[in-house]
Amino acid sequence: MEPFKDRVAIVGAGCSKFGERWDKSPEDLIIEAVYEAYEDAGIEPKDIQAAWVGTARSGEGGVSLADPLKLRDIPVTRVENACTTGHEALRNAAFGIASGMYDVVLAVGFEKLKDAGFGGLGVGRGTSPVYQARATAPGYFANIATRYFHAQGWDEERGKTVLAKISVKNHHNGTLAPKAHFQREVTVEDVLKAPIIAWPLGLLDCCPTTDGAAAAILCRADLARKFRQDPVYIKGIGFSVDPMLPTQRPGFDYLGFPANRNAARQAYAQAGIKDPRQDIDLAMVHDCFTITELVIYEDLGFAPPGKGWVHVEAGTFTLEGDLPVNTDGGLKSFGHPVGATGLRTTYEVYKQLQGRAGPRQVKNAELGLCHTLGGSPQVSCVTILGNSRGR
Amino acid sequence: MEPFKDRVAIVGAGCSKFGERWDKSPEDLIIEAVYEAYEDAGIEPKDIQAAWVGTARSGEGGVSLADPLKLRDIPVTRVENACTTGHEALRNAAFGIASGMYDVVLAVGFEKLKDAGFGGLGVGRGTSPVYQARATAPGYFANIATRYFHAQGWDEERGKTVLAKISVKNHHNGTLAPKAHFQREVTVEDVLKAPIIAWPLGLLDCCPTTDGAAAAILCRADLARKFRQDPVYIKGIGFSVDPMLPTQRPGFDYLGFPANRNAARQAYAQAGIKDPRQDIDLAMVHDCFTITELVIYEDLGFAPPGKGWVHVEAGTFTLEGDLPVNTDGGLKSFGHPVGATGLRTTYEVYKQLQGRAGPRQVKNAELGLCHTLGGSPQVSCVTILGNSRGR
Repeated sequence: MEPFKDRVAIVGAGCSKFGERWDKSPEDLIIEAVYEAYEDAGIEPKDIQAAWVGTARSGEGGVSLADPLKLRDIPVTRVENACTTGHEALRNAAFGIASGMYDVVLAVGFEKLKDAGFGGLGVGRGTSPVYQARATAPGYFANIATRYFHAQGWDEERGKTVLAKISVKNHHNGTLAPKAHFQREVTVEDVLKAPIIAWPLGLLDCCPTTDGAAAAILCRADLARKFRQDPVYIKGIGFSVDPMLPTQRPGFDYLGFPANRNAARQAYAQAGIKDPRQDIDLAMVHDCFTITELVIYEDLGFAPPGKGWVHVEAGTFTLEGDLPVNTDGGLKSFGHPVGATGLRTTYEVYKQLQGRAGPRQVKNAELGLCHTLGGSPQVSCVTILGNSRGR
Repeated sequence: MEPFKDRVAIVGAGCSKFGERWDKSPEDLIIEAVYEAYEDAGIEPKDIQAAWVGTARSGEGGVSLADPLKLRDIPVTRVENACTTGHEALRNAAFGIASGMYDVVLAVGFEKLKDAGFGGLGVGRGTSPVYQARATAPGYFANIATRYFHAQGWDEERGKTVLAKISVKNHHNGTLAPKAHFQREVTVEDVLKAPIIAWPLGLLDCCPTTDGAAAAILCRADLARKFRQDPVYIKGIGFSVDPMLPTQRPGFDYLGFPANRNAARQAYAQAGIKDPRQDIDLAMVHDCFTITELVIYEDLGFAPPGKGWVHVEAGTFTLEGDLPVNTDGGLKSFGHPVGATGLRTTYEVYKQLQGRAGPRQVKNAELGLCHTLGGSPQVSCVTILGNSRGR
């Protein structure tokens, strides 16, 4: 096996305004994101040799991307893998480049869930009844929260206050991101007082249902400087699958996810990362709920097991901290259009590594991480991106 | 751009019994196909480093494959692209190998449409109303048939008789394939007398709704002989997308599909094929309807434009002809479980190139073609496979 070794570069990225985009079609959102990416890379649509599109439930087939973009006579592939869907579009596009088959390709993710009849994350269509017995997403992650509180010996107020600080951080970061779904500060008190969705998780512990699209243009690394002087390189992509039912996961302790740990291990090995806390300058992680971000810190090695909360309280993951996490507001504040999320994280890290992240810029960022987690959850993707200084 | 150039080999393949498998779950069908492929390649499940699964509507996410196979800690990706879905699993798996990231991967396609509430091919969920105005699949291809009849100046009986011969051929081939959905001969008279589905297409011009799964194990070509002495190599993969609405396809004449012609052109260029009629020894093509197979002959260059019917009458595409097509019975007789079809075609060509196709064996087969066509239709995939003699 040979990792990417800087063979694949990202030379353009785009992201639509995220939010409740009732006045726009899925096609409008795709065009908004992709034309920003075209302009960013300085390329014409005709330069695209192949494309991958990620959508969970808002379209079928590659034509859901090809038609709005008027892509003709090239391969356009749809991928779907729960909340890692957008990340999978990037990953498979990267294989297309690394295989030598294509020089320049497009990866796009989009979702307009309410248009598609979305009524909350439930069980997949067509799966066997043996897999039907599971909770909703808030219910599932509420189990993780109560387990974490129990392991720490925390009462409700203590536990909810730790989680609230993650929501406060991500809402603050969202105020600095003009394309974020929400752009308002919340306080710890706001979070604690919010209506309960699935105890102990309240409304402000949960990410919203959001419309949006995001895109990246990938090329062979040796061609990247034809497009721009500050390309971003794919250093590693890890991906792992767990069984759908937690009861089938040996050693699963409800304090994190084996798929996260394994995807991170793969990506760190490819990118030569020994100590993620030292080596990684910023990270976008899958904060579908505040508790999810907390256990992800531990799964990805940003904090020792059981010690993520210590770093929450120390401010390690704020914009001013040692390892800023979800600099654009994350799923909580930027929003979570399922198929788009993996490419929205890519967009933010790409901008940060180019020093173009405006008021939320992380200083001297050379190496960034993108993470998505999907399903019950059972799939996890970790991508490491680096700029020229980080090579 | 660099084509596959024999860098990717297929060293194992499996296919479930196709048919109405009411007594089996989708998971059962997957296991049936994949364990045949494991045994064929002589590998253990633990040797699989990544997997791609194609399903149109019978599952969501990579976990729909990972769970029945107990795949753990590796990437498992779902792809979906209408009737090319199984072909896309193969194609993306091939990129995974060609990228150097993996040594051995699995590609699987499956479908159990009736379990998933299938009620006939219609418009994709979540697509915009602007794309809703189109016919059913039989209705769409009936237009192609009437157009073809008109172009030839044929009356109903003349046209339907040409189409019937394709059905007769594929039903005959199906009698030689124990895993085919249907295993009975039909006569031209049977086809002409069958109830009309969408004029001029009758029941025996249409492929059935079928349950099934198929699988292939791919590896780096330089490792292939560790697994077997008769590996099959990927010589080329072409893929093309057309606009969904025919009215948006410049020059579209209802006598074939630009996506087919373009995908074939790409694949032939990669595989160094100058004259498909001379160079290709057998082909599996997307005979969702008899008229579809007829225009595919012309799109893929097996016959000059407007002359496919001459070769139908001459028997060119029968098992004994110069270029046998759908040796296993095709979609018409073997069946069409959407996500599985691209890999069922691969399974048949793989067996033929190894001389293991039993009573339907094509003599001295060195180079074979697999083709799928999806959507209204607007996506087409063409793969060229070759054995060691064909290198």
